[in-house]
Parts: sequence; structure tokens; C-alpha cells
Amino acid sequence: MKDLISSKRLNFNEIDLIFWLADHYRKTRNSTFTFDNKCKILTTLFYEPSTRTSASFQSAMLSLGGSIIPINEVNYSSVSKGETLEDTIRTIGCYSDIIALRHPDEDSSERAVAVSSVPIINAGSGAGEHPTQALLDLYTIKQRFGKINGLTVTFFGDNKYSRTVASLANLLEKYNVRINWVGHPSLSPPKVIGEIDGVYEHLDKSLADTDVVYVTRAQVERHPSSVGREKTHFPTSFLEYAKEDMIIMHPFPRVDELSVEVDKDPRAWYFKQIQNGLYIRKAILTILLIGFEECYTNYSSTMKGFL
Amino acid sequence: MKDLISSKRLNFNEIDLIFWLADHYRKTRNSTFTFDNKCKILTTLFYEPSTRTSASFQSAMLSLGGSIIPINEVNYSSVSKGETLEDTIRTIGCYSDIIALRHPDEDSSERAVAVSSVPIINAGSGAGEHPTQALLDLYTIKQRFGKINGLTVTFFGDNKYSRTVASLANLLEKYNVRINWVGHPSLSPPKVIGEIDGVYEHLDKSLADTDVVYVTRAQVERHPSSVGREKTHFPTSFLEYAKEDMIIMHPFPRVDELSVEVDKDPRAWYFKQIQNGLYIRKAILTILLIGFEECYTNYSSTMKGFL
Amino acid sequence: MKDLISSKRLNFNEIDLIFWLADHYRKTRNSTFTFDNKCKILTTLFYEPSTRTSASFQSAMLSLGGSIIPINEVNYSSVSKGETLEDTIRTIGCYSDIIALRHPDEDSSERAVAVSSVPIINAGSGAGEHPTQALLDLYTIKQRFGKINGLTVTFFGDNKYSRTVASLANLLEKYNVRINWVGHPSLSPPKVIGEIDGVYEHLDKSLADTDVVYVTRAQVERHPSSVGREKTHFPTSFLEYAKEDMIIMHPFPRVDELSVEVDKDPRAWYFKQIQNGLYIRKAILTILLIGFEECYTNYSSTMKGFL
Repeated sequence: MKDLISSKRLNFNEIDLIFWLADHYRKTRNSTFTFDNKCKILTTLFYEPSTRTSASFQSAMLSLGGSIIPINEVNYSSVSKGETLEDTIRTIGCYSDIIALRHPDEDSSERAVAVSSVPIINAGSGAGEHPTQALLDLYTIKQRFGKINGLTVTFFGDNKYSRTVASLANLLEKYNVRINWVGHPSLSPPKVIGEIDGVYEHLDKSLADTDVVYVTRAQVERHPSSVGREKTHFPTSFLEYAKEDMIIMHPFPRVDELSVEVDKDPRAWYFKQIQNGLYIRKAILTILLIGFEECYTNYSSTMKGFL
Repeated sequence: MKDLISSKRLNFNEIDLIFWLADHYRKTRNSTFTFDNKCKILTTLFYEPSTRTSASFQSAMLSLGGSIIPINEVNYSSVSKGETLEDTIRTIGCYSDIIALRHPDEDSSERAVAVSSVPIINAGSGAGEHPTQALLDLYTIKQRFGKINGLTVTFFGDNKYSRTVASLANLLEKYNVRINWVGHPSLSPPKVIGEIDGVYEHLDKSLADTDVVYVTRAQVERHPSSVGREKTHFPTSFLEYAKEDMIIMHPFPRVDELSVEVDKDPRAWYFKQIQNGLYIRKAILTILLIGFEECYTNYSSTMKGFL
Repeated sequence: MKDLISSKRLNFNEIDLIFWLADHYRKTRNSTFTFDNKCKILTTLFYEPSTRTSASFQSAMLSLGGSIIPINEVNYSSVSKGETLEDTIRTIGCYSDIIALRHPDEDSSERAVAVSSVPIINAGSGAGEHPTQALLDLYTIKQRFGKINGLTVTFFGDNKYSRTVASLANLLEKYNVRINWVGHPSLSPPKVIGEIDGVYEHLDKSLADTDVVYVTRAQVERHPSSVGREKTHFPTSFLEYAKEDMIIMHPFPRVDELSVEVDKDPRAWYFKQIQNGLYIRKAILTILLIGFEECYTNYSSTMKGFL
């Protein structure tokens, strides 16, 4: 684990270490972990809009005692002069110790890793992957249920163009989980994602045994003109049928597919997701900057003082 | 004092503490106050353009030993995907310890406070309020005259659409101050602001007894089409009539309403305002991060070493 | 040396000190130099697009233990309200200890220095100068050859509108160097630059004795409509004739004037330039923040512990 490109390639040892470190950061929120070299720099290199994810990475790095170089403004960067992603990565690698990359191309992180001298974290690659989101989603599910195996997870909304759906499904595939896909046929998941357990058009009583409903915004910015935004709306009435201990998740931002009325329901766990994003990203930065082996096999001495 | 939303709601105890801390930071410019928890993070969440105010907040936080997450690029943030202010505040509150918010809506800070888990500082809310500017203005007046009561303050320029005017007038109302409003009738203050002592169309000899002339730029970005920019221009000749110990203030940026010729006049105090902005914002950040009670009642032990 | 405005005005003492500090930072990459006052703030005030240069300055300041205020978004700053450069510099000078300025006007740095209370570094002034780039270029040449005198340097590409060419030529003029200018006649250097040793239209066998080929991108954003972008393309075949120990340089970003095929050639030294940018900028920040005299005459005690 030198980089974090895809949730697909993570193994259980890696997931365990990430979750264990995230637990630590969640429980000792104000603890400051200081890298041996205090001047570690994270560059958030974002070619696509983001508030949440870039702020989350920046907060994680700063609260670990590191520094940040925020590059959010593609129009003002040399990419507007026509530079390739590869050249930009080579450059930024000279000026930082780790890079979080958001880019519209699905193969962007692969291409970055091929030329980079420092670790790359995929912070969203087009309609492809968003592995840190998938990890915080899985972590949130585990926080709620204490396990992953045996659960039923229902994806509702834009299952075709949402990279958060793709990335989380990739992770869930590693577990014994039943998955339901619910949404308009034009937003059905591509076959490559996971094992399709059930495909439905409506989120109704028939799916009342679900443990997790994962709602997504219509990714209109990636839709061909034939797909309409109006097709996604979480039916609040579903909560009457749903189990008492189930949870509703959403990767945010939300637009109008999930009413604020739902916020009051204790089953609404999407604000916990946002908070967990900080802990998961602190864990990932720690592992990639210190080294997986160092963290995993020798943590008692390496991280003494904060564990 | 958990947040700073409006200058109207500040009481004398709060103003005194802010000014006393600002004095400290002004007199010991290079002193570094380190928060107990070094990783405090300020997010500057700016939905409207700003160099001065965002840089001032960032400088204040950095020189207090804290960190910053700068979000200035609304077009690149998830707000462009249609997220509500409330959801953005909830999110950013997970990733920072305090938020400075600039937003075009007058009720934006109120709405933010209603959902925020961390303190909110209003860094400019449409044509409404700009309380940190009002505090630094009042502080500058007090620095010059050693008092507020008994002074005559003349607002000249855009008294209708300028939030700095509104916020300062709200503060001055708490004191025994005579206020003159000077400007084109289309830029007269709305009645809600302060007690109107005198309304004039021209800044001339008849107002020579003023202690402070507060010049403002025509807020053209907020003007209806019927209001013209050309109507505001500080008459340099006024300086011939004005008192020797009066001061000229301006919240900046200036365009052409105040000539650079005036800069040489020792009565030009607008660059002192800019410098004081740093001290006032350091004071406010200190109080909101440590807590007003802690600062006010127990400062000798809480802040020992820097007071 | 209170500011860094132009490579023309640097003397050998200054260049020597900068290179000597850069050597130090290059050889002890992970050493952290902490300013006596830890809260020194660099503002990168960029009115023109940049990834490389702004990230390089930010990385340099952060790895020196300082802090940064990044202002890259001119459209979101008060300059969009019509503020003059002078007023912006006066303001930012209140909020930071040093300013790196990129601006489209050739006289921008001069104007900034005239009103600034803190040191100004010219980070690119229109088609004029880019002295930190020139210094890192010269430093890279010296790293390769151990000397400057006696070398032959061939500028290839846009020798008219490229400020990196102008700035490096200004520096090379101080040495005993033969310069060739190669490119389309419409991109020939203005006469003011250096001593013209040879002007050629094509980079071919006749120039095989060159030690350095300095390739530049067509600065299309500064071209009048009569100049075409297609006129610049490094002929890879030239490498067959070129000396074994020569080097190819490029200030980057590159578009299509320099093929990625060249990257594999050991004579490609442009990635070393990028890396050296960090060390040179750390050196310059150190000198301007600590003071040249202090660094030069008394470094053994001033910088004890890292030298």
C-alpha cells in the first residue's frame, strides 16, 4: 500500500489498519500526532469542484501537524496552458510529500502513480472511483452495526454515474453482503460493479428488511442529455416501513433528492459519515506517509505516545 | 458571546475585552500566542470576493499559531452543485474549529449559527453587517481620541448599501456620539440605522467640526440600476476647513472616491485601520476559541505568559 | 538586497550566497530551518495563472517552518472592485512578512516595492522578468558543469515574449558565456536582452557545440495575432548531433514544443530545474526574511545548527 487508487485492491489487513487508526483518531479527537519530520506537505490537487473532500483532506493533514498546499483552481493553474497531468504530477511531487488528486478522467490516478515520486491518493476520478469515500462509508456502517457480513445494503438513486456507489460496492463485494439496486432504469449500475443481488425501480415496502439505504444525488454533470435529474427522490414514507435499527446514508452534497425532514430521524447517519471522513483520511495519510509495514508490524514503537 | 453575528448585540464588557486583547496584540506584535491545542483550524468560507478580509482573518489565525483552510472559490465548491448553506456549514464544522463566513444574504450568519457545531464569525453578510470591520473602526477611533463619547462622526458616500457603515453605526449608537450622514439622496441610510442626527448632501465647510469622516466606496455591485457610481467623491478641499486633529477613515478597497493625494495628510488613518484589522481579529478569534468567560473572568491564569 | 525584482541587479556576492544556501537545502532536504519567530507569513499574490511557481514558493516557505496565505484568485479578490496594485500591496503588507508577486505588468514589482512595508519577490512580471526562475536555471547549469564561464547557451523557441529567457539572459550577461538565439524571426529577442552572439532560424548540426539548449513554450497568451504557435518545436533529431555532456532545459510548463520522448535522455535536465526551484526559493526567502547582511557576514552564529 504505497498509494490509494481503488477500493477494489484493498485487502483486509489494510482495511483493518485503516479502521483501527480511524478509531484512534475518533476517540482522541484532540490528540495531536506529530510526524517525525514536521514539515510534511499535502497538496490537494483538484481538477473538479469540491468543498467537502478537499476541506476534509486539508483538515486531516493539518490536525496531524502537517501542512497543505491547496490547488483548487484549475483555471488559474498551468493546466490552462495545456500541461499534461503527468507533467503536473512530476512537478507537484517535487514540492510536496503526498498528493490527493481529484480529476475527471477515470484513469487519472493510475497515470499519476506511473510518474509520481510521492504517494497518490485518489480523491475522486471521474465516474470511476472515490476510495476514501468508500472507506468512510464502510467504516460508518461498521460503527453502527459492529460488523459488515450479513447486512443488506440498498443503493438508491444514481447507481450508474456515482463514483461513491462504485467504490463502496467494490468494497462490499469483499464481504458477505446482500445488495439491492434501486432507481430509474437509466441510472442502473453498469454490470462491472459487484454482484447484482436485486434490481428494483422503486424503494418501497418490499425492501423493508434493508439495513442500509445509501442515497445518491443524480450526477447531472456526468449525465448524457437523455437522463433526467427529476428521477431521484428518496421517499420519506419509506421510513414507516424501514427497520428501527437501519441507517440512511448519503455521500453529500445533497440537492433535493433527500429532504431535510429526514435529518431529525435518528436513522439519518449522513452527518456521521462527514465526521468520519476526517478520521479515515487522517488514518490514510498516516499510513502512506509513515509506510504501511512500519505502521502495521511495528506500531507499538513507531507510534508510541499516541496509541 | 459564542459567535459574532452583529455589532448590534455586543455589550460593553465584550467590546472592552476585545479592545484590551487587541491592545495587547498591537503592542507585542511578534508575540506568539499558542493555543493549548495547537491544531485549531479556521476555515474562511467566502461566497463573495475579498482579499483584505480573508487575508486578515488568515493572518490573524496563523500568527496565533493556528491553521487555516481557505475556501474562497465558490464556483469550484460543492455549492455549485446546489448545496444549501446549512449543509455546507454542518460539513465545514466537522473539519474546523471556527468559521469566518462571508455570504451575500443578510441572514446568512443567523442561519449558519442555527446549525453550526462551531463558532461563526460574520465576515460580511450582503448589505447587512460586517461586525469585525465595525470593531476595528471603533478601535481605531478610540486609539486616536482615547474615547468615543462626545465625538462627531460624519459618514460620507454610500450610506445605504454599505454594510461597514451599517455595522459601525450600530456600534456608535451605544455611545453618546453625534452622527452626520452626507451623500447623494439615493444613497441615504435606511431609517433603521442609528439615530439620524443630521442629513446633508454635500461635505463642506458647514461640517468642519467633525472628528471623523468615514468615506465609503459606492457599493455598485449592490446598486439598483437607478443609482450612479459617479455620485461619490471625497472633496479634498474639505481638508482645508477640517479640524487639525480629525481623522479620515475608509474601510477599503477604494476606487476613485478618495484620492491618493490624501494619503500624505497625517489625518489619513485608513492604513491604520487595515493594520488594526489584524489585532481585532486576533482578539476575536482568541475569545471565541478559548471562550468569553474563560478570557474575561480568569485571564490572569488562562492567558498567563502573554498578558 | 531587500527585495528581488530583477536578475539584472544581482551582484556576485548575492548570487554566491543564494547558491550556497540552495546547496545546503539540496543536500539536507529534510532539515527544518525554523525562523526565530515561527509565525512568519508569506503571501503568494498571483494575478496570473500558475501552479508551479506558486506551489514552489509555498512549499519553500512551509518547509522553512513558515506559513502561507495563498491568493491566486484574482477574480474573487478586491482587485475586481477596481483596487490599485499599490493599495493591495499596502494591505497585504499589514498581514504578511513577505510577498511573492506575479502580475501582468512589467513594472509591477517596482511599483510594489515603492509602497511596500515588507520585502517583495518578483514571481513573474508580464513579459518582463522572472528572477527566481533565472536563478534556479543558472544554479542548475552550475550544478551540471561546475562553472558558468566558457559555456555556450542556446535559447530555442519564444525568445521574444518569454520572461524566463529575458531573466536568464540578464544573469548570463554577467559571465563570459556565448549565447545563440534560435527561433522563428517573429520570436527573436528584443535587442535589449544581453549581447547577441548568434541568431539562427533552425536548431541544427551547425549548433552542435552548445552546452545548454534552453527550450521555451510559445507564450501564446502574450502574442499579437500575427505570431503563430506552430513555429516552436524542438527537433529531437538534434540530440544525435549534440554533445554527450550537454543538457536540455525548459522552464515548464511544456505543451507540444518538447516531446516526452526526450525525457528518457540523460541530457534532459528540466525535472532537476523543477526540484532546484524549491532550494533556490528557500534560499531567497531565508535571505530576505533574515536579512542579507546577517546571512552573509554572520551566518555561522545566525544559522548555527543548520549550516
